[in-house]
Amino acid sequence: MVLLPDVQALRANHELKLTRVGVTGVKKLVRVLRPGKRDYTVFTPTIDAFVDLPGTQRGIHMSRNLEAVNETLEKLVRDPSQSLEGLAGAIAEELLQKHGYATVAEVRMLTDYFMKRRNPSGLSLYEPYALGARAVAIRGKKTWRTIGVEVVGMNACPCAMETVRELMGEAWPKTREMPKEAPGPTHNQRNRTTLEVETHQLDAIDADELIELVERCQSAPTFEVLKRGDEAKLVLQAHGRPLFVEDIVREVLTAFAKKHGRLPDDTILVARCESEESIHKHNAFAERSVTLGDLKNGAA
Amino acid sequence: MVLLPDVQALRANHELKLTRVGVTGVKKLVRVLRPGKRDYTVFTPTIDAFVDLPGTQRGIHMSRNLEAVNETLEKLVRDPSQSLEGLAGAIAEELLQKHGYATVAEVRMLTDYFMKRRNPSGLSLYEPYALGARAVAIRGKKTWRTIGVEVVGMNACPCAMETVRELMGEAWPKTREMPKEAPGPTHNQRNRTTLEVETHQLDAIDADELIELVERCQSAPTFEVLKRGDEAKLVLQAHGRPLFVEDIVREVLTAFAKKHGRLPDDTILVARCESEESIHKHNAFAERSVTLGDLKNGAA
Amino acid sequence: MVLLPDVQALRANHELKLTRVGVTGVKKLVRVLRPGKRDYTVFTPTIDAFVDLPGTQRGIHMSRNLEAVNETLEKLVRDPSQSLEGLAGAIAEELLQKHGYATVAEVRMLTDYFMKRRNPSGLSLYEPYALGARAVAIRGKKTWRTIGVEVVGMNACPCAMETVRELMGEAWPKTREMPKEAPGPTHNQRNRTTLEVETHQLDAIDADELIELVERCQSAPTFEVLKRGDEAKLVLQAHGRPLFVEDIVREVLTAFAKKHGRLPDDTILVARCESEESIHKHNAFAERSVTLGDLKNGAA
Amino acid sequence: MVLLPDVQALRANHELKLTRVGVTGVKKLVRVLRPGKRDYTVFTPTIDAFVDLPGTQRGIHMSRNLEAVNETLEKLVRDPSQSLEGLAGAIAEELLQKHGYATVAEVRMLTDYFMKRRNPSGLSLYEPYALGARAVAIRGKKTWRTIGVEVVGMNACPCAMETVRELMGEAWPKTREMPKEAPGPTHNQRNRTTLEVETHQLDAIDADELIELVERCQSAPTFEVLKRGDEAKLVLQAHGRPLFVEDIVREVLTAFAKKHGRLPDDTILVARCESEESIHKHNAFAERSVTLGDLKNGAA
Repeated sequence: MVLLPDVQALRANHELKLTRVGVTGVKKLVRVLRPGKRDYTVFTPTIDAFVDLPGTQRGIHMSRNLEAVNETLEKLVRDPSQSLEGLAGAIAEELLQKHGYATVAEVRMLTDYFMKRRNPSGLSLYEPYALGARAVAIRGKKTWRTIGVEVVGMNACPCAMETVRELMGEAWPKTREMPKEAPGPTHNQRNRTTLEVETHQLDAIDADELIELVERCQSAPTFEVLKRGDEAKLVLQAHGRPLFVEDIVREVLTAFAKKHGRLPDDTILVARCESEESIHKHNAFAERSVTLGDLKNGAA
Repeated sequence: MVLLPDVQALRANHELKLTRVGVTGVKKLVRVLRPGKRDYTVFTPTIDAFVDLPGTQRGIHMSRNLEAVNETLEKLVRDPSQSLEGLAGAIAEELLQKHGYATVAEVRMLTDYFMKRRNPSGLSLYEPYALGARAVAIRGKKTWRTIGVEVVGMNACPCAMETVRELMGEAWPKTREMPKEAPGPTHNQRNRTTLEVETHQLDAIDADELIELVERCQSAPTFEVLKRGDEAKLVLQAHGRPLFVEDIVREVLTAFAKKHGRLPDDTILVARCESEESIHKHNAFAERSVTLGDLKNGAA
Repeated sequence: MVLLPDVQALRANHELKLTRVGVTGVKKLVRVLRPGKRDYTVFTPTIDAFVDLPGTQRGIHMSRNLEAVNETLEKLVRDPSQSLEGLAGAIAEELLQKHGYATVAEVRMLTDYFMKRRNPSGLSLYEPYALGARAVAIRGKKTWRTIGVEVVGMNACPCAMETVRELMGEAWPKTREMPKEAPGPTHNQRNRTTLEVETHQLDAIDADELIELVERCQSAPTFEVLKRGDEAKLVLQAHGRPLFVEDIVREVLTAFAKKHGRLPDDTILVARCESEESIHKHNAFAERSVTLGDLKNGAA
Repeated sequence: MVLLPDVQALRANHELKLTRVGVTGVKKLVRVLRPGKRDYTVFTPTIDAFVDLPGTQRGIHMSRNLEAVNETLEKLVRDPSQSLEGLAGAIAEELLQKHGYATVAEVRMLTDYFMKRRNPSGLSLYEPYALGARAVAIRGKKTWRTIGVEVVGMNACPCAMETVRELMGEAWPKTREMPKEAPGPTHNQRNRTTLEVETHQLDAIDADELIELVERCQSAPTFEVLKRGDEAKLVLQAHGRPLFVEDIVREVLTAFAKKHGRLPDDTILVARCESEESIHKHNAFAERSVTLGDLKNGAA
């Protein structure tokens, strides 16, 4: 039997610790049984998994990162976890077990996610969303976990609608008599809004609920199948609630604080909204990072 | 001196000719002096360069492909070419020189391109477009060259506008009295339209002209800087000319045939239009491939 | 009740037929029960679905494309299809049903795919691949279907290995005495090989078999989990079988013809191989398109 | 004259300040005259430009962000700046001027960059790199600027080389007599290493120097054109210096500290190294974030 050399355990070229060492872009098929659901939910996440490395050791044994991923997934078949971020947390804790020299482990996942939504005429179909999860396990401390959702919807510009009304009144004076509630033309476009919640008490938060919360904050949701009448209803819904990217970020955070105000004050929230402008080749963008405590105390 | 083995000239594992052998993803900085311009036009194309390979030879000498690219670019400094597709053609012909065993050479290029455009209030700034070029050189025959342009503009949906008017009339009867010319709300979005022209008489076609031709066929152009009044004018322009992706493809081909009808009948045209729908998470798409002859003869 | 206007059925701006009109980028979750498997196979394809459009009609009713996708997927739950390309074919035929004015329908799908593979020490885990399918249904004719697989493996350069041996012999004369079978250093890299098979007799072909066939043609396969000894075995396997991109394309086509020679002669094969060169910033590439008939008759 | 409504200046839906509001994905063509160069350097950056927004105001006037970009670029023609990060800083400061309500402005840029490199046989050609810049201007304080470079090179795995030697010795005992300096086969691959430097004293740092520094830390550089002898020399160079991603990050930081130790202690360094593994479908990754002070004091 050959005794293989352990090159990774050798001394490093420079005694310098590293923040993250590991693997990126690992694709997996994951089946999770979520509470209250009969069928397994399927994810196909791309996974990154890291540990830190002290200055005294040259390298990590990277195959252990993949073993941590796979062993955690196998356990899952027998004892199904309830969420993607729960899975990320379990992998991060397993990484600390396998890498005795590490003090921090981090796992990130990003996946497509499909959720049933009802369109204006009541047809219920799966719509695609994106789900992200991150977990940071620190030796001897609680694991921090993050759940993130991305929702593609629609936003209509309030500023252009006002100005268009003025111009229309000049060309067609009759339109001045139109009631203020009657929406006028404006530019509207695909809108991409994300919300990330980072906490060590994540169990109370459900990804489906987060998606619904964010979707309600856009000018209108979008659907795969729309008959002619559905299209018109959605267009009117969006024009009846024109919103800037700034408005949507504020709506999302306020709605979250209202619903989840009992979470710890050190919960970190990041909301982002990007509007793929129809009148520009570039995008409009707004973002807010804030703790739940600051948000509630108005220090925001 | 070591005589290095020529592994590529060995017999192949299977006597099977290959359609394309070469390099992909070569990034270059190219300066071209275009007719009627004082400053060099700058391109940063990503280049693919191929030749075919007979079944009797194991491999090509790939470094020759890159030498063909570089030598052609160097000549350009002394004798500037006038177009990206002219450059692609010159490289393809150089490839045939360098690979005596090849009968066909193909070069593809894709680059960002910046062109000055005047916004509604007259401000003139560079807007970004994409330019593509392809050349196919066949030993003993004329070289075929393709020029392609991509224009990001705006399109407004004509169908939703009609249906929205009906619904608005129910909620706000006054809007029924609005003149038909007064545009109503509809969904509008980022629109990506491309036109490719393949011919062996390409010199008469100018990329700038093609971009302008395509841009005039969308509901409205888009601009980097728009003050409030500009936004309103663009929104009204787009809503005054609502177009399906189908309409835009037909407009582009018809406008091209009108302007360039004197080109050879075997000129190949491909027009594509993709609308990044604001009311859906997917896109709407239309495409037509046709020869100029068929287009003119109504066989289309 | 409002009678909604059918804007799509109006006359077009120009009487010009269109090659493809439809939707792109539709994301779906699909469960398929493949023959001989107990569990459902899960795909998350991105789908494009088109029909042609006569010159006399302004637009298609795009929601019908999505209804064709969804109704076909629903039927699948009760009568599971056996393959992704079978599903694409069924959707294309449904599209012709729904669009009476169309003569051709086309459906394209691209998805991640996971397949169990055994690494050198016998550990069996899912590895990620990509699967593509395309179907073209022509009214009154047989449907053409295409199945495509993408395999990421490894290739080692045969040319550099020869030259490196020469140079090593100069610096360390003892290496000249090394047996020819002992592999020397060379550059090796991530290799991406695809095979597409288009035919109207596709039922005999299994995607898993195609993946295995392509994987055996690379210098070595790649695996998620490799312990130290596995790594060394794979490196030796790849260096014991150095291959150009040209070699791999020829191996793939020859192996396919040997195994599936009984398929119709008009079956179309496209093999592509791209090597993400470790010694260059660009890639090396080879491709062959050929009918099975030409391939077998040596006209190739 | 119409007095257009200033919708952005209205009160927000919720009194909540925002961290970043602005535009993303703005593409520009920029010419910069760098010190000691005769020709203008050309960049085609994608630009993001943000300011913060107090809770009392509904939205920002986004067209001002683009005016800040354009006015700064115009000034540049008359008074050329010397660097991309200098330009980012000037735009960020202009943003604070234009948005009186903002306290922080941030500008990010990412661009391809071409630099002349000499291959082993002395041929000098432009190689492609990526350059990033970021500037954060805080009202009443110094502007922080970041310069980042990305270098694609090659790394060879030290661990597999050791293990392969053992295995080779079993199969071909003669290879045991090979001198230790004679490199053996191992897996090697495309390597992507980045270094970011953030400081308020950036003038002393030159992007070209940073690129050279990073490139010297990989197992070997890569080149566009390599003749057969060049390939062999590069392969031997890489195999003579096998490096883990961990090694490369440490080399880069140590080399930077040695060369730029006189920069302020609060300078922030982030080094990342990603290896597109030839024996895996995923990547290996290492990262370190550290202040120059901590790095020099061994607290690292």
